[in-house]
Amino acid sequence: MDMQRALTATKVISPGMGNFRLRVAEILEGRRLRDPVARAIDLGLIGLIVLNVIAIALESVPSLMQAYQRQFFILEVFSVFVFSIEYIARVWSCVELRGHNRSHSILTRLKFMTTPMVLVDLLAILPFYITFLIGVDLRFLRVMRLLRIFKLTRYSEAMTTMFEVLQEEKSVLVAAAFIMFILVVLASSGIYLIEQDVQPDVFGSIPAAMWWSIVTLTTVGYGDVTPITAGGKAFGALVAIVGVGMVAMPAGILASGFANAFRRRRVSFEQELQIALEDGELSEAECESLKRIQAELGVSEEDAEHLLRFALRQLNGASLQCPKCGHRI
Amino acid sequence: MDMQRALTATKVISPGMGNFRLRVAEILEGRRLRDPVARAIDLGLIGLIVLNVIAIALESVPSLMQAYQRQFFILEVFSVFVFSIEYIARVWSCVELRGHNRSHSILTRLKFMTTPMVLVDLLAILPFYITFLIGVDLRFLRVMRLLRIFKLTRYSEAMTTMFEVLQEEKSVLVAAAFIMFILVVLASSGIYLIEQDVQPDVFGSIPAAMWWSIVTLTTVGYGDVTPITAGGKAFGALVAIVGVGMVAMPAGILASGFANAFRRRRVSFEQELQIALEDGELSEAECESLKRIQAELGVSEEDAEHLLRFALRQLNGASLQCPKCGHRI
Amino acid sequence: MDMQRALTATKVISPGMGNFRLRVAEILEGRRLRDPVARAIDLGLIGLIVLNVIAIALESVPSLMQAYQRQFFILEVFSVFVFSIEYIARVWSCVELRGHNRSHSILTRLKFMTTPMVLVDLLAILPFYITFLIGVDLRFLRVMRLLRIFKLTRYSEAMTTMFEVLQEEKSVLVAAAFIMFILVVLASSGIYLIEQDVQPDVFGSIPAAMWWSIVTLTTVGYGDVTPITAGGKAFGALVAIVGVGMVAMPAGILASGFANAFRRRRVSFEQELQIALEDGELSEAECESLKRIQAELGVSEEDAEHLLRFALRQLNGASLQCPKCGHRI
Amino acid sequence: MDMQRALTATKVISPGMGNFRLRVAEILEGRRLRDPVARAIDLGLIGLIVLNVIAIALESVPSLMQAYQRQFFILEVFSVFVFSIEYIARVWSCVELRGHNRSHSILTRLKFMTTPMVLVDLLAILPFYITFLIGVDLRFLRVMRLLRIFKLTRYSEAMTTMFEVLQEEKSVLVAAAFIMFILVVLASSGIYLIEQDVQPDVFGSIPAAMWWSIVTLTTVGYGDVTPITAGGKAFGALVAIVGVGMVAMPAGILASGFANAFRRRRVSFEQELQIALEDGELSEAECESLKRIQAELGVSEEDAEHLLRFALRQLNGASLQCPKCGHRI
Repeated sequence: MDMQRALTATKVISPGMGNFRLRVAEILEGRRLRDPVARAIDLGLIGLIVLNVIAIALESVPSLMQAYQRQFFILEVFSVFVFSIEYIARVWSCVELRGHNRSHSILTRLKFMTTPMVLVDLLAILPFYITFLIGVDLRFLRVMRLLRIFKLTRYSEAMTTMFEVLQEEKSVLVAAAFIMFILVVLASSGIYLIEQDVQPDVFGSIPAAMWWSIVTLTTVGYGDVTPITAGGKAFGALVAIVGVGMVAMPAGILASGFANAFRRRRVSFEQELQIALEDGELSEAECESLKRIQAELGVSEEDAEHLLRFALRQLNGASLQCPKCGHRI
Repeated sequence: MDMQRALTATKVISPGMGNFRLRVAEILEGRRLRDPVARAIDLGLIGLIVLNVIAIALESVPSLMQAYQRQFFILEVFSVFVFSIEYIARVWSCVELRGHNRSHSILTRLKFMTTPMVLVDLLAILPFYITFLIGVDLRFLRVMRLLRIFKLTRYSEAMTTMFEVLQEEKSVLVAAAFIMFILVVLASSGIYLIEQDVQPDVFGSIPAAMWWSIVTLTTVGYGDVTPITAGGKAFGALVAIVGVGMVAMPAGILASGFANAFRRRRVSFEQELQIALEDGELSEAECESLKRIQAELGVSEEDAEHLLRFALRQLNGASLQCPKCGHRI
Repeated sequence: MDMQRALTATKVISPGMGNFRLRVAEILEGRRLRDPVARAIDLGLIGLIVLNVIAIALESVPSLMQAYQRQFFILEVFSVFVFSIEYIARVWSCVELRGHNRSHSILTRLKFMTTPMVLVDLLAILPFYITFLIGVDLRFLRVMRLLRIFKLTRYSEAMTTMFEVLQEEKSVLVAAAFIMFILVVLASSGIYLIEQDVQPDVFGSIPAAMWWSIVTLTTVGYGDVTPITAGGKAFGALVAIVGVGMVAMPAGILASGFANAFRRRRVSFEQELQIALEDGELSEAECESLKRIQAELGVSEEDAEHLLRFALRQLNGASLQCPKCGHRI
Repeated sequence: MDMQRALTATKVISPGMGNFRLRVAEILEGRRLRDPVARAIDLGLIGLIVLNVIAIALESVPSLMQAYQRQFFILEVFSVFVFSIEYIARVWSCVELRGHNRSHSILTRLKFMTTPMVLVDLLAILPFYITFLIGVDLRFLRVMRLLRIFKLTRYSEAMTTMFEVLQEEKSVLVAAAFIMFILVVLASSGIYLIEQDVQPDVFGSIPAAMWWSIVTLTTVGYGDVTPITAGGKAFGALVAIVGVGMVAMPAGILASGFANAFRRRRVSFEQELQIALEDGELSEAECESLKRIQAELGVSEEDAEHLLRFALRQLNGASLQCPKCGHRI
């Protein structure tokens, strides 16, 4: 993710090995929103990824596979060709990115190749080449091509934020998963003790009973397996109620995590605002810079407006003047 | 929504083309809470909308349709008549609303007609006229009349707030939906690989397997399709657990969104309070104005009271005075 | 609820019509935690209510009813006797409570009798007397006695807080319920249009289809009714996903509501703390008074400790000294 | 939990009865992260616990039990041996822990033995000895060995935090559970009144109807029992909608609880930061100490960094200096 952040804040640094490589780096990773070429390439890639996911899903329908085998194959070859070029171009041009040491280009490239997003790019094309190499068309490899869908994450700002929140709350979420695991073990043992003799086929062992426990604790409740004795139903009711608390736990954690992440960004923006307003006015250049920072931090329009109005009032209002000296603080 | 906000804050501006048009605008959009005529018309329209929704739902019951066809038709004609007059009156009088340029009345009206609420008004009457025009009574058009229910949103303050929060958190909610989509694709491919040969009718292709994935990831869990192999059950359990996290995500986002929206309103109200208290006391007029602002911002009674008490204490209390100079800070 | 609050803060005011009535009021409504008689009566009543709820539930089991009819009847008569005395004592003694005008005792009592908690007390005994009057033992009246369970709410501080939060967030929760209603109407119409011809028995009319819509939107998902066409499944999947958002909405609202309520209480406590510390030290009496306020506001031990430690540091620390005058602020 | 906290903050105090006991206490409870012996023992115990849980679950599968009875027995004997030594070592060495009075070693040990974590340690070995004593191998005792899983809680920081939050919000969660109970009683009575005559086998009494109520209110929705009359479906739909609110309640409470806990920790860290920065700079030693405090409080890296950057800016920045006097406030 650090890598990721470095990339988004990238201002690609100037010439050296050739302007073309720099230009490629700018287009692929520079996120210069106003560059029409970069935008066109972005949109083209997004479209191709979406088309691929749909095609691979439809390919699994036997009747469609038979009817359009040729078309599916052509799309696959074309897509792998484009994605391969994209992959090579990314790896080749990555040395131009700020934060990378251009003098150790091989090391830099290897490091770049192990970042999550670039690994996804590799996974998107690998199944095709493996199928080609081993000469057998495995169903597993065909389905694995669906991982191309992860290439889309690169293009959404909000999604990056969400993954960051999940990352930050990782330890608490893992703890929640662990509590879930404990509950599954307890629920399974309980129902196994109670219903083992009555329904030996579904509650005959603890591992077998886990299917029911998880289906109940997650409140999915298929109903293919349910307790039938009075004791089993009483225990099942208890497990269902505990399950509600279980479902509430990650919601509570994520709610607090999101609130936290957004607050932190807002405070950062507020500080930038204070600096910009230090001289008592907001120049054109400062305003431009604030807009940029706002977009980078992902502060919402409403919040930005609100903070600006607040800051301006503080500047002109009497309420925050030093009562003795008469100077604004 | 900007339109919407402009309307709620409307103080309709004075005469010109005739007092009647101004009066109509005031009644329909002015939200003057104390005007008994406006209140009566509001209540009448709300009643008619509710009656319509109930009638249209009951119409779909074959036995009721046969027995009361005449009554249903009369209600329909009457309702469309009223809603048509309402629609025409809104479009005709909208130029009187503040924020609209009365000199370009046609442009203003076209712009007004494309705001969400007015489009809903059009959708409410359109099916009737289309049925009339094409001469055939399509079931689809009959059901579409149920969209009249959306006309009710105009009358609830809290609902407007909720739609605003959803609007603000749009980008994050879309990202959550996208993560949902990725998970559906992964879950479908997984179960397709595992159970395809055992249950070819329900897991025979990835699109077919999506029904199960979505039913499981949303924790709905009908149970009409469930994995039956040990591997499928293990994978299904994993999907169910991930689904719990999936359900938690939007809850977390909305919790943080609501908290944010309410905080922002409270802070705005606090600022108004500080201004009103700047001279050291709270006059009658200031009090009135604060009440109005409080209602506009949707700050709860409890919060308002609390902030006021806090502000007053700060004003009179010793705790926030500089003990030496005796000046308030 | 205002009534309720007045009661908890009650310091019953001194003699007049007789010390006994005052004593009764103190015991029943005074919440004097250290009074052993009041505690014993509270515990006795709680026990009797719980016993009643269990007995009434068990009474509905035909075999138990036959075997223990006599015992159930004796318990019922005894309970109604006790609850009737409790009810009469409450109404009789309520005029002694602070906030009540003792000179208009009939009006005061009528007002007191219409507060939610006292109505519940009436509902708890009414079914018995009605059965007695009409001479027929209706099943409905027998079950209505279960409303006695609501008498328990009087004894839980946290529950009162929760009802207050629900009250405060009422308007937003109603709006959420209304959005739910709109979604139910839309989902029902949609599935009705798609599956009407294939499953006329369950999707044959919009009201019939509502059962499926609600079961899906709430993510309950019984599975007794499910779409079977491809179109119906696609629509059903969409409804399930929207349902997840639907479930998230009240969670978000309540999360923000609870956070708000707790924050407000904490701030109130903080202010009391500042006043107590104004003279630079915390006397025994102040400490006692703070404890009482903390309990009244429902501030947690952790929060109270934290705020106190913070306040003390502010008092002694240098970081919050006025740099010019050298005096603490 | 107080005990627990005392242990984590433990700096075991110096010699007396022998260095060995002190060393044992350090290794088992001292949480000295850099001690390789302690880490190895921790990892070994974690591995053994996990292995045990898996083995006990698999033991319940009849076929596996027959095939590997010997291996299961050997693992059991070995595990109980290790856990017994661990238990004895903990109880023996606990007197060396800070906060324990070494002069009353028996009392101290008894108090230590009743702390939750140490009780779990006892429960982990007890079933084996009981089976040995009574001479019969009860299925219940065999399953009870699964409680060994709770021994894992000792090793996760985040889990301790979560249990603390659950502890703090206990009273509100209990109130939520109580509201749940009221709703179950009401839902059961309602469906009993409506569907008793139609489905006497599943809704024939209130206790029987509770199975359906709980399954619906928790949104589990197995579908083994569903209302079939129109009235029953209408009531069931209402119960399902109320159930959504029910699920939202604990989510809201926990969200606010987590947010609260994390905020409190952050504020504590902020205060330590302010003290460290009081002299205008951050020395090496102060930085080290802050790192330790950060870990202890469980403040995330992001938050710590953020607060530090903020504090440093305040220190050097002009924005918070009094512009006239030049003194920091």
